[in-house]
Amino acid sequence: MQLNETHDVALTSWVESANAPGCDFPVQNLPFCSFRKRGSGESYRVGVAIGDQIVDIRASLAAGSFNGKAAEAARAAADAQLNRLMELGHAAWSALRLELSRSLRHDARHATRHAIVLAAQGDAEYGLPVKIGNFTDFYSSLHHAHACGMRFRPDTPLFPNYRWMPVAYHSRASSIRISGQALRRPQGQSRTAGSDIPAFGPTQKLDFELELGVYVGAGSELGTPIPVDEAEHHLFGVSLLNDWSARDLQQWEATPIGPFASKNWGCSVSPWVVTLEALEPYRLPWSRTAQDPAPLPYLNGTAHASRAHLDIDLEVHLHTAKMRKDGDPPSRLTASNSRHLYWSVFQMLAHHTSSGCDFAPGDFYGTGTLSGPQPEQAGSLLELSFNGKKEVKLANGERRAFVADDDVIIIRGAADKPGAARIGFGTCEAQILPALPFPLPSAELTPPTDRDATGRGRTQNA
Amino acid sequence: MQLNETHDVALTSWVESANAPGCDFPVQNLPFCSFRKRGSGESYRVGVAIGDQIVDIRASLAAGSFNGKAAEAARAAADAQLNRLMELGHAAWSALRLELSRSLRHDARHATRHAIVLAAQGDAEYGLPVKIGNFTDFYSSLHHAHACGMRFRPDTPLFPNYRWMPVAYHSRASSIRISGQALRRPQGQSRTAGSDIPAFGPTQKLDFELELGVYVGAGSELGTPIPVDEAEHHLFGVSLLNDWSARDLQQWEATPIGPFASKNWGCSVSPWVVTLEALEPYRLPWSRTAQDPAPLPYLNGTAHASRAHLDIDLEVHLHTAKMRKDGDPPSRLTASNSRHLYWSVFQMLAHHTSSGCDFAPGDFYGTGTLSGPQPEQAGSLLELSFNGKKEVKLANGERRAFVADDDVIIIRGAADKPGAARIGFGTCEAQILPALPFPLPSAELTPPTDRDATGRGRTQNA
Repeated sequence: MQLNETHDVALTSWVESANAPGCDFPVQNLPFCSFRKRGSGESYRVGVAIGDQIVDIRASLAAGSFNGKAAEAARAAADAQLNRLMELGHAAWSALRLELSRSLRHDARHATRHAIVLAAQGDAEYGLPVKIGNFTDFYSSLHHAHACGMRFRPDTPLFPNYRWMPVAYHSRASSIRISGQALRRPQGQSRTAGSDIPAFGPTQKLDFELELGVYVGAGSELGTPIPVDEAEHHLFGVSLLNDWSARDLQQWEATPIGPFASKNWGCSVSPWVVTLEALEPYRLPWSRTAQDPAPLPYLNGTAHASRAHLDIDLEVHLHTAKMRKDGDPPSRLTASNSRHLYWSVFQMLAHHTSSGCDFAPGDFYGTGTLSGPQPEQAGSLLELSFNGKKEVKLANGERRAFVADDDVIIIRGAADKPGAARIGFGTCEAQILPALPFPLPSAELTPPTDRDATGRGRTQNA
Repeated sequence: MQLNETHDVALTSWVESANAPGCDFPVQNLPFCSFRKRGSGESYRVGVAIGDQIVDIRASLAAGSFNGKAAEAARAAADAQLNRLMELGHAAWSALRLELSRSLRHDARHATRHAIVLAAQGDAEYGLPVKIGNFTDFYSSLHHAHACGMRFRPDTPLFPNYRWMPVAYHSRASSIRISGQALRRPQGQSRTAGSDIPAFGPTQKLDFELELGVYVGAGSELGTPIPVDEAEHHLFGVSLLNDWSARDLQQWEATPIGPFASKNWGCSVSPWVVTLEALEPYRLPWSRTAQDPAPLPYLNGTAHASRAHLDIDLEVHLHTAKMRKDGDPPSRLTASNSRHLYWSVFQMLAHHTSSGCDFAPGDFYGTGTLSGPQPEQAGSLLELSFNGKKEVKLANGERRAFVADDDVIIIRGAADKPGAARIGFGTCEAQILPALPFPLPSAELTPPTDRDATGRGRTQNA
């Protein structure tokens, strides 16, 4: 059975760095990315992590590394992003994984090794691994939903629909950025307590959201729902996702049709897409009693119930400008696990397509903030700081209610347990840059002498 | 001035059908589409309407029809969809329009006419004119927002943010379909009055929404807001949009983060993209007093105020199966005008990008339902039937609270006034097909003998 073969915890690689304890990328993982040599200006190409190296798929294919069905998959992956590989479906992904695994193992023959072309991760820069067509964000941690609800609606923290469906909103695909790319603090409307008039300016409540992002590999037709028991065959893989949020903008704008400008200025995703197949040893059974009431039939299946959870440990760290200057390590803000989700990633896809909504290879969805049951497992500063009421104390004595300018937020994740190889996700990190002055409309910009005299053009509603 | 030249009401075309009174596509219009010969299986290509004909841009370019900057634009338009042309920006669109106008006028020289390759609209079928990357739907008719609010929240029909910002949600780009393509009635969760338990099944409140769709031509960078006075230079054109909605699903799912499955099963757009330049004679000044309170500076500009409105008449018609069988014409449900919007399409783009959200050529947004101030100008059946409480009587005596299976909803639109040429939008129409049986998860489908005996697999929660 190829699943057992590629997951065998005893497997080691001739790429020695892959065998180091705690390495995110042993031969059992083999996550995908889009990379190029840093600063080269080359076009990006698909790669697969092994230890501290990247298998260059296109170059390895040219060197004769793949055969049969794996070669077909490798030809589709010999591209800038993963979409063409995703289109081929589960059997092709699996064939490519099996051949990569065999070629990278310690006992691979010399000729086989020789056809694998490696690049050092230390010399690489990464692009978005997938051209993301559509982006949806779910809200599937009951702990997060309840905590947010308590902040804003203490009388009805959970709406009645919450335990009946994976609640979600469509989000913005255009502004998803790869880990490492800094983002500007957004501006927008918010209303201060006690005022009837909103002001426009930089958000004062910039927050992270700890999420997993799920890439749909095999699409579906409009009008054709995906049954919950078949959902896993459509999913290519999982990555880390920081769904940045401007809480003050969100609170003002989100009634009655949901978050908008508070969310669409940027999301950060990790470079690595860990395949669902690599996570096979970390699927946990679903206890039907964990969902109360029992889900409606379209969200409830036997195969799903037997392996619905993903057991992935997740952490969020904050690296302030002062810590970086002082040479201090990042300070951990929270630690959680994706098993705490109320709705599974498979139920999310089943619900999303239940209306007939179609999916294309490369469509993407977030789980929602992955808060666990304990307060210290909260996946956002909104929860950790009680919406700013109680600052979080960092390891070096600094404090934060929300994210400050020049802060770097780092998400790390890994599935790890005795008897199975560590399946690491690498990191998803991004720095927040100060807001830029907002361009005023020409009515405010002319005549220039007025602007110079009054200072208008730099501030609005300040 | 080329604007004046292409808009001159006295212009006529050598394509005689373009000169007929009431023709949607005179030489002053020149809207774009993506078309092919019906049933041919050819690849789609960009065309421009003139009378009852379509200018085949690629074939006309090959015949030597375009010169200079117009040829550069025509080369970008010699494609399946408009995105490459959109990327070139406003000056290129304008150059192509001017040369098309001159080549199609009554006084064009024989050689010029000869290089224009025409196809009959009667033999054509249409594809999506643009590859739509991201789709946002606004909520910018105060009349619609107020009427909807009264249905569901009579105490607070308008939330306090409504008059401060163009409220919007991100919607689903994947399921946008071209006019003429039938859509399946969606299924989903809804809760009947008096019950605490939702049921899954075909929507009982299928509604249309009369909207305009706006295509962004020239994109913007992440972190770079578009000032309201510059918004018009980013917009390529406008089309008709039916934002189909399942009201029972929407009411149950939309708290607290907005509509989702009720909206993502399909939107219908018209084949024709009417350029913003063609609508130049139909721009109306903005009265600042029309917005109370005055918008914040980023939504308020002098240039914007002088020409913020679009004056486009819109109608929705219903053609039932019985009408079609009896040879009756469609029955008009409503008539409105886009000038009734509270927020302009330019303010929408300024607000959308104010957070730093980026746009790519071909991104798209809807205005929201274009209800006018009078009850008979309502842009949805939710309003016209008072959420099903009072059926609408059709011309042939049939009645509707919401859209029935096999109904065809037809949107028509045109800008028309004395002293200017009619700028028609054609039609946006789609038929609603009955819901399909929902595929049950395998838990419900096995063993097959059970399913055969009980009939399960055909109904859920019935």
